[in-house]
Amino acid sequence: MKIITLTTDFGLRDGYVGVMKGVIWGICSDVRIVDITHHIPPQDINQGGIALQRIIPYFPANTIHIAVVDPGVGTNRKPIAAKVGSQFFVCPDNGLLSRVVHAGKQQGQEAIFFELNKSAYWLSEISHVFHGRDIFAPVGAHLASGVPLSEVGTPISDPILSPVPQPRLLENKIIGEVISIDNFGNLATNIMDFHLDQYQKNYTIKVKDTKINDIVKTFGERPQGNLVGLIGTQKDLMIASVNANAYDKIKASVGSKVEIFFD
Amino acid sequence: MKIITLTTDFGLRDGYVGVMKGVIWGICSDVRIVDITHHIPPQDINQGGIALQRIIPYFPANTIHIAVVDPGVGTNRKPIAAKVGSQFFVCPDNGLLSRVVHAGKQQGQEAIFFELNKSAYWLSEISHVFHGRDIFAPVGAHLASGVPLSEVGTPISDPILSPVPQPRLLENKIIGEVISIDNFGNLATNIMDFHLDQYQKNYTIKVKDTKINDIVKTFGERPQGNLVGLIGTQKDLMIASVNANAYDKIKASVGSKVEIFFD
Amino acid sequence: MKIITLTTDFGLRDGYVGVMKGVIWGICSDVRIVDITHHIPPQDINQGGIALQRIIPYFPANTIHIAVVDPGVGTNRKPIAAKVGSQFFVCPDNGLLSRVVHAGKQQGQEAIFFELNKSAYWLSEISHVFHGRDIFAPVGAHLASGVPLSEVGTPISDPILSPVPQPRLLENKIIGEVISIDNFGNLATNIMDFHLDQYQKNYTIKVKDTKINDIVKTFGERPQGNLVGLIGTQKDLMIASVNANAYDKIKASVGSKVEIFFD
Repeated sequence: MKIITLTTDFGLRDGYVGVMKGVIWGICSDVRIVDITHHIPPQDINQGGIALQRIIPYFPANTIHIAVVDPGVGTNRKPIAAKVGSQFFVCPDNGLLSRVVHAGKQQGQEAIFFELNKSAYWLSEISHVFHGRDIFAPVGAHLASGVPLSEVGTPISDPILSPVPQPRLLENKIIGEVISIDNFGNLATNIMDFHLDQYQKNYTIKVKDTKINDIVKTFGERPQGNLVGLIGTQKDLMIASVNANAYDKIKASVGSKVEIFFD
Repeated sequence: MKIITLTTDFGLRDGYVGVMKGVIWGICSDVRIVDITHHIPPQDINQGGIALQRIIPYFPANTIHIAVVDPGVGTNRKPIAAKVGSQFFVCPDNGLLSRVVHAGKQQGQEAIFFELNKSAYWLSEISHVFHGRDIFAPVGAHLASGVPLSEVGTPISDPILSPVPQPRLLENKIIGEVISIDNFGNLATNIMDFHLDQYQKNYTIKVKDTKINDIVKTFGERPQGNLVGLIGTQKDLMIASVNANAYDKIKASVGSKVEIFFD
Repeated sequence: MKIITLTTDFGLRDGYVGVMKGVIWGICSDVRIVDITHHIPPQDINQGGIALQRIIPYFPANTIHIAVVDPGVGTNRKPIAAKVGSQFFVCPDNGLLSRVVHAGKQQGQEAIFFELNKSAYWLSEISHVFHGRDIFAPVGAHLASGVPLSEVGTPISDPILSPVPQPRLLENKIIGEVISIDNFGNLATNIMDFHLDQYQKNYTIKVKDTKINDIVKTFGERPQGNLVGLIGTQKDLMIASVNANAYDKIKASVGSKVEIFFD
């Protein structure tokens, strides 16, 4: 059975997500639906793209990912569908897929894009404000029920793809940034294990005014509250406080500079 | 496959929703379950009814909607089931269905009601405090597995139905109200596009101390932060701030007066 | 069709739960997944155990409960699976199952435990920080697809089980405690209906500085705002404020002493 995932900034209070599921199962009753998150900060395309990219490797081939963080809804921004590697995506053309495409390229995966312009695969009435319900959910459901990607739109070669900020690898130093902060207060960075592997093993992390030189394999190796650096869920350098909240201690934000000193 | 939807004020912290799903799938394993929202403010029957009414048009015929906002649980308020148009409802008899029935009537749909009094379709033990788990979930599941509505209860003709506040249409003015505020801070009103259609095209909106005369088709037509009026997800007049939070700017509440001036 | 439940402290913001579902359905596409709660306070094993124990009676035999509140992830704490009565559990060996096992014993149910040490049933790569995704989800999915419990690990006889605090039953007094506080502000205690049954019917509850002698059957019997004692969803003594928030009035915490005076 096919899987559809949903990633949005809709929150869970207003029934917007539930109504998309009604639309999906009304069109294709034989599909699983997985909520990735609906708590992307409103209109934050970057965080939407990060959430999406992280989950891809854990879903089977032919999964259909519907992502709706859509500040341009109702304007002339295009609705699109894409295939990256073995997985499908349905979303607004606003850069949401930048990280997915970037990560796919690193693994030699091809990406193809289609502008959604076949209204036969949409709801019969299209609002100016809720394309998640009116366009993206029905197109995702039609893909799940076997309609080929080439049927729901027309190929395009110029989707909006934003650059994915990479860390700067200097002689004795890496300069990266905080890219997200999770529910536990762990800070995820854009510095990956393979970046660190190019340097010597001992290093000090500096973020905001805090220096951390306690590099561990896992949370439980240090007493509660200690600030540590470790390789996180995505093979990224993560800054954590053992069974406590690093964010509360460091007050870094998404975008805060993270410096790694090798000496 | 049938669909059951759930709309409650239970929140997602305490496992109350999960336990209802265990009960449902224990009785009828072959049904999809959709969470509409579990974040109705505690005991707010009006907001529960609004959430419910909005999603109905997007669910297929024979969907079963279980709604539990139930300040009178354990008292002599009746548990009921209903059919409105082609869809089923299971909930306490406290006015939750007022808007659904009102909207159905406008479309010529019949509504029939049954008091749930056949305990064979309930859990074997009934608490005084959690009929969502003990009565509504099992009755919904039995309906999903094919038990006819007339089997789970006895017809009643006097369900509790509260009036649905309509806007006042004056000569050069409409007076309505804010009926809900969503996750993005958009204010939904009870003024519909067909109300506005009876007047001239140019108008000014006044809500609290704020005047808005920028009427647009969609969010993206104005610079970020601008306050605008537009037709929302439900064909209702919505007050929004472009890619920002109108609620934070206007501080209106549910029930705040909304005046439309045509001049 | 089998059911898997998920109980975690992951929250719903970061996609951690969604990715577990991708892993589960990638291994066993024919299973229902129920979210119990993902809002256990971070690392709060006790609250995780309470949430889990409450829902068990409402799930069918052979349900597989995956629970991840895991402060020791990546250390030498064992991953385990268990069978208690007719239901299965997959979780870290840190006391999460204490209440489930305790409640099972009271009903004469046997409990057996296995250390998860067959990596053939895990993801191919195991992080040090997210065993929910890498070990617990795949093992749960393999159990759902029919792999026997004895295949996924090796029997152990010494799982970590913490004592479950029982109320003290004195001559004219019961001393118990608040064990959880729900979304409505209701205080759940560890004093059960069968404890109270051993005393006379009239009693006064004291919690923090508040005395409550209004014992009712259900919320709706008193005017809004009244503080009452009643038997709750789990046959436990619950302290509530009628259609209002008892927690806001009493400011008790989990662990606050609850005294019952019979005079």
